[in-house]
Order: sequence, then structure tokens, then C-alpha cells
Amino acid sequence: MSGTLVIAGLGPGDEALVTPQVSAALARASDIIGYIPYVARISPRPGLRLHPSDNRVELDRARHALELAAGGAHVVVVSSGDPGVFAMAAAVFEALEDASTAWADLQIEVLPGITAMLAAAAAAGAPLGHDFCAINLSDNLKPFDLVLKRIRLALEGDFAMAFYNPRSKSRPHQFAEVLETLRQGAGPERLVIFARAVSTPEQAIRVVPLFEARPEMADMRTVVIIGASNTRQVGRYTYTPRRV
Amino acid sequence: MSGTLVIAGLGPGDEALVTPQVSAALARASDIIGYIPYVARISPRPGLRLHPSDNRVELDRARHALELAAGGAHVVVVSSGDPGVFAMAAAVFEALEDASTAWADLQIEVLPGITAMLAAAAAAGAPLGHDFCAINLSDNLKPFDLVLKRIRLALEGDFAMAFYNPRSKSRPHQFAEVLETLRQGAGPERLVIFARAVSTPEQAIRVVPLFEARPEMADMRTVVIIGASNTRQVGRYTYTPRRV
Repeated sequence: MSGTLVIAGLGPGDEALVTPQVSAALARASDIIGYIPYVARISPRPGLRLHPSDNRVELDRARHALELAAGGAHVVVVSSGDPGVFAMAAAVFEALEDASTAWADLQIEVLPGITAMLAAAAAAGAPLGHDFCAINLSDNLKPFDLVLKRIRLALEGDFAMAFYNPRSKSRPHQFAEVLETLRQGAGPERLVIFARAVSTPEQAIRVVPLFEARPEMADMRTVVIIGASNTRQVGRYTYTPRRV
Repeated sequence: MSGTLVIAGLGPGDEALVTPQVSAALARASDIIGYIPYVARISPRPGLRLHPSDNRVELDRARHALELAAGGAHVVVVSSGDPGVFAMAAAVFEALEDASTAWADLQIEVLPGITAMLAAAAAAGAPLGHDFCAINLSDNLKPFDLVLKRIRLALEGDFAMAFYNPRSKSRPHQFAEVLETLRQGAGPERLVIFARAVSTPEQAIRVVPLFEARPEMADMRTVVIIGASNTRQVGRYTYTPRRV
């Protein structure tokens, strides 16, 4: 019997944001693979093997998933959010490309999920209501200069922006540089949304003008959304109009 | 009794992509408002009033929703995909801002959904696996020159791109201009994904190098994804590696 490999997005945290498609895949799985806190979201049941692993071992985890599936298992790799947005889907295809052709015929399916920026935007109003960019601020896999270049170009194009992985203990100064780059290209009243732990009981949404934004307002559980020039507030909602 | 207004995303088409959160909101609703084909996706039940309306009347529809909610109804405005991405959420906040303060205390909630580009990306592999932009190609609400400017900047930043509303009968030449702009800034082998009617029985995913891309490969039911310079194919999957 041939195995299968599904890469599924669990959404940002709230179980009511897990799609029925993903729930059905989890119910059929023999093996669940993923980063520890994501695997912890899966209810144990007889016959289901859980394989939690540490952060920053995405390629090892992807190879493990491919091996198990090639051996006949029904594997679900779980990501938070959407697996195709700064998550496990690309890592699985990287591992597939690096590997021998032994896995070439494996059936792989990616199941989308609610990615953090969309849940954050919904919680704030509609700040991504017009053209926008999604940028991963981590320099783990790309030079930090490229991050700053992309931010400058997005400002020039007046895109709204969503930043993933804005800040970590290993690179405390970089988010300050990001804020400085924003100040060079946008006015002091540009709206900045810090959306922490979206859709969980710890959710906190804070909207400040750029001149009040401070690096310590973000951590690794925060998605930061930068408004376009016409992003505005109406009552307690922040939104970007559809017309420029 | 005070009413409520929920703006909910139905996802791209497959009912298995509707979140439980949205299903619960629909079950509590007294009134459903939206574009005809989206309202057609809601199962009728006693006591539920359906208010389908034509396209291009977003502001009228938004005002109608606000009026009904202010009158005590439990209104759900339905969008396809995610309501915050080129959909009804921004229109509701525009109507709220234009209005008198009579609606200022109304409770408005946006419920995220699976937006078309994420379902399209998942069906193709992981082409949005690194930094990307989402651009609405319609010139209905912005000058077309701004569309082309944003595409040029996104190419300069080597973002992947997702195009919504790539082509309509009222502006048949513009998507040809978009392809020409891409050819000026990207090599002929740059990968282009035409994802039509994603997650429906008519789903069709076509991946071609830029030099083979033709305007007639897209219509209004198509999301077009442009790869970054390192977007590649492995087997039948198209993906963007996490490292540059």
C-alpha cells in the first residue's frame, strides 16, 4: 500500500479556524510531524503516532515525513497558519528536490490554512484591503539587506505590508532598523499594527502611529502590519480603502 | 436588542474550506448579504433572509448591511475568499466612515477565510513560500499606471506575486500590458501559474514559462501567480525555496 503526504495549515491558533478539509486529513492520518507546539494541538488517538520536533530543523523534519510516507504511512505535516506562507510546504519541496528519485512518485498534497496576517488583519479591521506585501523579517535564510531593500520598494509602491517573524532574541537590533527604514520612507502618522497571539486567549491588537512604534512592541508571536499611505481608522477599526 | 454585523469569508469555493467560525456565524444569522453567486452558496432555512445583489454595488451593499444591523438584525456579509483581501470588509468600513455617527457603536466583526491566492498556491505546490505581493489588477478603483508601477517594483525586489482580477471583458488589453511589463523585468523562463476556479470541480492549474504566457490564459475566475527568480519545479509541484 502506498503512503501519502499531506502538508496542512492549522491556522493561527483558534480551533474554529481549522478548515474541515484539514480536520478530515488529521482524522485519516497515521503519523503527525511538526514543530512541538503545533503537534501539541493534535488530539491523541489510538493508532496515531505523534512526531514533535524542535524549531530550525525544517529540512530534517521534511525528510522524515517523506521517508515515512514512502514507507506506506499516511503522514500529515502540520504548520501553523498556512503551510505555504513562511512554513513547511517549501521545506518539503526542497527536501524532495535534494533527494534521490525514490520519492518522485509520492502523492503530496498541500492544504491551505488561515495565515497569521489574514487573522491579524481581520482582528484589526481591513488593513490589507488593497495591494500588499508579505515579508519575512528573519535573516535566517536571506541577507538582512534584502529585507530592507524589499521594505524600501514596498514603501515606494505604497503597498501595505505584513511582517512575519519581526523580532527574535538572536537579532534584537534588526527590528529597530526596520522601523528606521520605515521612518525614512513614510510619514510619522503612518499606522502600524502589532498583532500578538492572534485568535488565542492572549490576543492583543495595538495600533500606533509610526512615530510611537517601538521595537519592544513586537516579539516572535507578533505579526506587524504597516498601513499604506491611505490606511486610516474609523472608530476602533483600521482599514485601507479600496481606492487610492 | 442590538444587532450585529459580521463580514465573513467563504473561501474559494469548496465547502471543506469554510472555517467552523464562519459556519457558526452563518447558523446564527438573520440576514445574509452579498454578491449573487456568494449568497447562492448559503443553504436557505426558515427565518433566514437572503439579500443577493449584483456586482459593483459594494458600497450600497455595505450601507444596506449597516442599516439592517442598526435595526437589530444579525447580518452576515459574505465574501468569497477572505473578506479583507480585495473584498467586502474595506467597503463596509468605507460606508461606516461616510455615514453619520448613528452606526458608530455597532459591533462589527471580520472573520477571515482562505483567500484565492493561498488555495491556488497550495494546489500548485508552494510558489508563495517566500516574500510575495498581492496585487489587484483591476483599474476600477485605481489608475492602471499604478498597477504597472507596483509590478515593476515587485520585480525589482524579486518578490513572487499573486494577481487578483487579472482580466475582464471591459479591459481586454491590460493583461497583455502586464505580461509585457513582466517580460521587461524578468527572464523568459520565469514561471507563471494560471489557477482557475480553484477548489471547485472546474479547477485548472496551468504552469508555463513567461515566454509562453498568453493573455487569454486568464479570465476573472483566475488567480495568476508569478514566481520569484528562484521559483522552480520539482516533479509536478512548483515552489519558491525559503533561501534566496
